[in-house]
Amino acid sequence: MSEINLAVQEITADMIARVDRGAVATYIPELAGIDPARFGIAVVDAEGAQHVAGDGDTLFSIQSISKVFTLTLALGKVGDALWQRVGKEPSGNPFNSIVQLEYEKGIPRNPLINAGAIAVADAILAGHTPKAVLGEILRFLRYVSDDETIHIDRAVAASEQATGFRNAALANYLRACGNLRHPVEMVLGVYFHHCAIAMSCRQLAMAGRYLAFAGRHPTAGGKVISAERAKRINALMLTCGHYDGSGDFAFRVGMPAKSGVGGGILAVVPGKASIAVWSPGLDAQGNSVLGSAALELLSRRMNWSIFGE
Amino acid sequence: MSEINLAVQEITADMIARVDRGAVATYIPELAGIDPARFGIAVVDAEGAQHVAGDGDTLFSIQSISKVFTLTLALGKVGDALWQRVGKEPSGNPFNSIVQLEYEKGIPRNPLINAGAIAVADAILAGHTPKAVLGEILRFLRYVSDDETIHIDRAVAASEQATGFRNAALANYLRACGNLRHPVEMVLGVYFHHCAIAMSCRQLAMAGRYLAFAGRHPTAGGKVISAERAKRINALMLTCGHYDGSGDFAFRVGMPAKSGVGGGILAVVPGKASIAVWSPGLDAQGNSVLGSAALELLSRRMNWSIFGE
Amino acid sequence: MSEINLAVQEITADMIARVDRGAVATYIPELAGIDPARFGIAVVDAEGAQHVAGDGDTLFSIQSISKVFTLTLALGKVGDALWQRVGKEPSGNPFNSIVQLEYEKGIPRNPLINAGAIAVADAILAGHTPKAVLGEILRFLRYVSDDETIHIDRAVAASEQATGFRNAALANYLRACGNLRHPVEMVLGVYFHHCAIAMSCRQLAMAGRYLAFAGRHPTAGGKVISAERAKRINALMLTCGHYDGSGDFAFRVGMPAKSGVGGGILAVVPGKASIAVWSPGLDAQGNSVLGSAALELLSRRMNWSIFGE
Amino acid sequence: MSEINLAVQEITADMIARVDRGAVATYIPELAGIDPARFGIAVVDAEGAQHVAGDGDTLFSIQSISKVFTLTLALGKVGDALWQRVGKEPSGNPFNSIVQLEYEKGIPRNPLINAGAIAVADAILAGHTPKAVLGEILRFLRYVSDDETIHIDRAVAASEQATGFRNAALANYLRACGNLRHPVEMVLGVYFHHCAIAMSCRQLAMAGRYLAFAGRHPTAGGKVISAERAKRINALMLTCGHYDGSGDFAFRVGMPAKSGVGGGILAVVPGKASIAVWSPGLDAQGNSVLGSAALELLSRRMNWSIFGE
Repeated sequence: MSEINLAVQEITADMIARVDRGAVATYIPELAGIDPARFGIAVVDAEGAQHVAGDGDTLFSIQSISKVFTLTLALGKVGDALWQRVGKEPSGNPFNSIVQLEYEKGIPRNPLINAGAIAVADAILAGHTPKAVLGEILRFLRYVSDDETIHIDRAVAASEQATGFRNAALANYLRACGNLRHPVEMVLGVYFHHCAIAMSCRQLAMAGRYLAFAGRHPTAGGKVISAERAKRINALMLTCGHYDGSGDFAFRVGMPAKSGVGGGILAVVPGKASIAVWSPGLDAQGNSVLGSAALELLSRRMNWSIFGE
Repeated sequence: MSEINLAVQEITADMIARVDRGAVATYIPELAGIDPARFGIAVVDAEGAQHVAGDGDTLFSIQSISKVFTLTLALGKVGDALWQRVGKEPSGNPFNSIVQLEYEKGIPRNPLINAGAIAVADAILAGHTPKAVLGEILRFLRYVSDDETIHIDRAVAASEQATGFRNAALANYLRACGNLRHPVEMVLGVYFHHCAIAMSCRQLAMAGRYLAFAGRHPTAGGKVISAERAKRINALMLTCGHYDGSGDFAFRVGMPAKSGVGGGILAVVPGKASIAVWSPGLDAQGNSVLGSAALELLSRRMNWSIFGE
Repeated sequence: MSEINLAVQEITADMIARVDRGAVATYIPELAGIDPARFGIAVVDAEGAQHVAGDGDTLFSIQSISKVFTLTLALGKVGDALWQRVGKEPSGNPFNSIVQLEYEKGIPRNPLINAGAIAVADAILAGHTPKAVLGEILRFLRYVSDDETIHIDRAVAASEQATGFRNAALANYLRACGNLRHPVEMVLGVYFHHCAIAMSCRQLAMAGRYLAFAGRHPTAGGKVISAERAKRINALMLTCGHYDGSGDFAFRVGMPAKSGVGGGILAVVPGKASIAVWSPGLDAQGNSVLGSAALELLSRRMNWSIFGE
Repeated sequence: MSEINLAVQEITADMIARVDRGAVATYIPELAGIDPARFGIAVVDAEGAQHVAGDGDTLFSIQSISKVFTLTLALGKVGDALWQRVGKEPSGNPFNSIVQLEYEKGIPRNPLINAGAIAVADAILAGHTPKAVLGEILRFLRYVSDDETIHIDRAVAASEQATGFRNAALANYLRACGNLRHPVEMVLGVYFHHCAIAMSCRQLAMAGRYLAFAGRHPTAGGKVISAERAKRINALMLTCGHYDGSGDFAFRVGMPAKSGVGGGILAVVPGKASIAVWSPGLDAQGNSVLGSAALELLSRRMNWSIFGE
């Protein structure tokens, strides 16, 4: 058994034994019923080997992790022009983003907070229909993860659409500031549906390979994005990927990563590994308690922090 | 000539030729008169070789870069208890920190913004006199840089003390919230003096070796701090080291780094290099224009970003 | 000619001659085309005499002035329970109310800012249809003003509904905080339509009599509201009636009053007069430039400030 | 017994019987020990009659009520130029004023909050010594109250100076923004001492007569200030006199008034009465619980609200 594999097994055993698992997000009704004892992990290493343990093949709602993929697509479509509509700075304040939007006149601080991802969804729409754009997002995810089964969980999407008043407030505010070009309902339709994509840790770790390995597609060959762009997306994940807990995550784990309120985290170790963990219990900042703990252990054990040898 | 040396030479030539150099900080009278055309750089590599160019041996006021060293000392004295008084999150908002202090009831968001560094200075004081503590800071810097000549520029310290009303507001606010244990004047005395330490790029790059090389002292041997603590300080530099431009710096350069309004930047590439640059012209966020540009070029050329291979 | 009449005539002549008239609001397309040179005034005194000058019989969009009337109706329906959903404090900050909403968890600071008036519209709905509720608002206005011709300008309502993204952001935010009980579209429908009521200065001054004269209906006899409630609504108009210019208006004019972005102002002098002025040019705070100036002159000349003999 | 006298007696009896008295301010050590059961009231009517009950002759620390008098003096010295340094708008937000100071670049929102009163103290200094200026303030108070015994409680002043870090933060911030012309310590010396003036309800009600009676000095004859200026100061008291409870106080009581954390409130009914109440227990906004309740009863009983007949 390889060292990675052993680490993955032992960390999984440790996580399953833990009692302090945080609380499952309740504001999306479809997610509220999930058992907080679930834990999954998958690591794809530089040789392409997959190390999967626990519930690593269970589908969960990737939620905000999807923002990394829509950001990738938006940069592909509009390039650096995107940065005229969205910033690159951590949001860094406990009051959520509608306050920031008003202070900064409709420019979300970064593409990984809700307001920023809504602007990114608008950028991807580019005159197409929501259906066409969602097809494009799915095709991208299926391609980078080598898995044609990836799909949107319609029940989760409907559940969010019914209760997503805070996101509707953000979208309307963006529109009021001239930072949405399509109708609010259309943009939110794309946003709620890409957040409702269901994936397993294995699928997600496979999908993250292009970020871990210099923009390349290890199995298909060729480039998904340039190595330069992969670095930049990784930098954004490091500084902004865990909402107002991004600094603490960098401090403890030291990997570019993006969390979602479904309890998943996608993390990349440049040149070494693409990792996905999942456990639905969240901390006060909305990040997976066991997921963060597992990555912290893995980072120390494998010496995978980007901040030191 | 080594590849690093060639890079350093060419980047220096490029920088000296640039016209857009930003504006020298004017709020500290002693700094206001410095020629914006100055540019220096020093790189210490894993073998201990020093690559210095331009004004790399000119002394400048390290200002906020000193916060990295006082943080190191404070962690040595009080350990993780420091994090009860100071956060680890990027400040991330264009309104400076007194607003944040009020929202977060006297807990500065991180140790690298002014309010946080003032709390750190209070933590180092620990009942000693400002003079004793400043002696300790200097001894630390002389040790890590192998240079006994490092000193405080008294004229700069006096200049700051006379005009530092905003820092006095922060210190009084911290004290009102119970987050300063020593008299305001005493803490500010330490703070203004450690910000007024004068160093060259060469000295600074030497001083930063323990952060780049796993906490070790390459020449003296032995550990300055643990490898784990070095990673954590690097993580804080990456997320918080450039004020409200930290996200952009991570995006463009991809190195843990700390800037100062004197125009210096200390950057580390774990396992590879400790780097210092200096050019006094600043951008709107208070970071050296040419210094950032030089590090961006160096990062690309040497492939030194921590975010990709 | 009475003293009031003379004052009204002379002030009108003065206003018409003024050059500095502010700028007409452009964000509601239907209002943008109105001639800034228009000025009207109407005063109804304690004897019921009407003193009208300039464009005092021209219809204009009362906009936010309507909030005083919906507040009156909401208090009639739910009484002091309204104050669990809406505060009584001036908003008092230059950042508009969505920031405040977030800080205060969905409780608008007062019923005369947009967020507060949207919550008031929700309170009036009380399970009825928007059409029924708008009928009720119109019946109330026709009754208090003795004028059966008062109506909603459908073109203005449609114009607001098409562009009112900021209000949609507020309404969605209120709903996200549990402070709207009806669907967002339904509440906004009521809100946009009552803001689009068209009235003349004469009609508005007649409508304001119950506030000036202890809750009584001077011509129909009987009480519209209690004297106590009239005082309280007047207090709210004084502290909150001119957005972030309320303090300045109290300082200069000294009358409880409510302005609208259509350029109208309703002001009351308890026991002495109900006054309406109209001129579409606005100052930076969104209050009528000539309207405020006319009321300031009238206050001094008639000694009508509530703050002194 | 006159109707006012009867009202004063009955309200006093009511107040003394009440159990819910709020909490005495503890942040000024010298005030913390005062018995919350104390209650005093004094009313000076238009005929000059004094109606005093309860502890109406007990001295207490007037604290922020002093800001009304320093504002009067500052307007006498610099006139409307004062409004370039201080606003006229309610502060209206639960976060206290250092946040607002930063948003509005060092211009306090009004002269009755701490930051504004510190700027006013700077305006009165006008190159004189703190001792001379404090003498001037005392002479003014002795004159308007017909009482030569009014003095500063040095123990209270010393107590505030030792603990007033939040005010020191505000003063330093004002100085950093260029809105203080004298040294911070000098301005704070004046501020802490004028807040520490000790007066009884009787003295305070006498002192407030110039505001209630059109700027006139009823006993000395002549004008203290113009009737116009008295109206304007009253307007500021109404909109800004009770911190973030100003709207609620206007709503319930309907009198221009200024509260202090010592538990006193000075209220004026233009043309009718100058009133002072005192009870040291405070509500969450820092205003006297029994003092507000007593004024609310008095306002209803005497029909003294400025917002209705």
